[in-house]
Amino acid sequence: MVDLDRNGLEILGEAECWQLLEATRVGRLAVIAGSRPDVFPVNYVVDRGPGEPTIVFLTAPGTKLAGAVLTGVVAFEVDAADPLFHTGWSVVVHGTTQLLERTEDQMAAEELPLRPWGPSDKRDYVRIIPTEVTGRRILPAVAQPG
Amino acid sequence: MVDLDRNGLEILGEAECWQLLEATRVGRLAVIAGSRPDVFPVNYVVDRGPGEPTIVFLTAPGTKLAGAVLTGVVAFEVDAADPLFHTGWSVVVHGTTQLLERTEDQMAAEELPLRPWGPSDKRDYVRIIPTEVTGRRILPAVAQPG
Repeated sequence: MVDLDRNGLEILGEAECWQLLEATRVGRLAVIAGSRPDVFPVNYVVDRGPGEPTIVFLTAPGTKLAGAVLTGVVAFEVDAADPLFHTGWSVVVHGTTQLLERTEDQMAAEELPLRPWGPSDKRDYVRIIPTEVTGRRILPAVAQPG
Repeated sequence: MVDLDRNGLEILGEAECWQLLEATRVGRLAVIAGSRPDVFPVNYVVDRGPGEPTIVFLTAPGTKLAGAVLTGVVAFEVDAADPLFHTGWSVVVHGTTQLLERTEDQMAAEELPLRPWGPSDKRDYVRIIPTEVTGRRILPAVAQPG
């Protein structure tokens, strides 16, 4: 049994959203920067513990991204698309960001399987604390009801 | 000769940004929805004429995305990543949105190679008029200077 939204897209449950988040490496962070929206690709990991799962990524201090995450309220998106079959899924996490400043939090983050991609060597860890996790899947046309 | 930004990322010229935008099918639209950022995956095409290039995508009227684009100011992002080699690129377009309401604009949009992916049948065309187009590429580690 598949739950569909008003547009006929499959509504993904939160557990499946987290499975997709864990299986993906790169997402996009949407923020309000000044009075306009901005969006940054980030590589990230899901941190499973302790407590509720969160998302952790790295920023280079002093960058536009680092400044933007300080606004606190973010949306984070991952997706996969198959242009040939016009199918795909997306997961969006709304939440707040937290710069990891305590040494113990930074040391715990060092244990995560997260490595910087760019050449910049100084990095801060940022955690997204989710307030809402939603996902949708476009079903293949042959599987459409009706 | 490669231009690098302060983080050692290659700065892509605007012509290359448009080439990458034209070669990609799915991007993410970041908007301010109420007081928080939101982000939506959209399939899109680059419209080359007449005038400056713009980006066109479809929305289903009455949806969260359709409401969000009415705020006018958006950021639109496309990227590709190679997790194995830790390389990738991204292009971000800042701009304003315009709902195509005139019949002649809608008819011109019908000629674009843009088809809805989801099952919803009623669709509006939205155009992003760029005010800023920027791109970055993470160079493979072996090619890093120094």
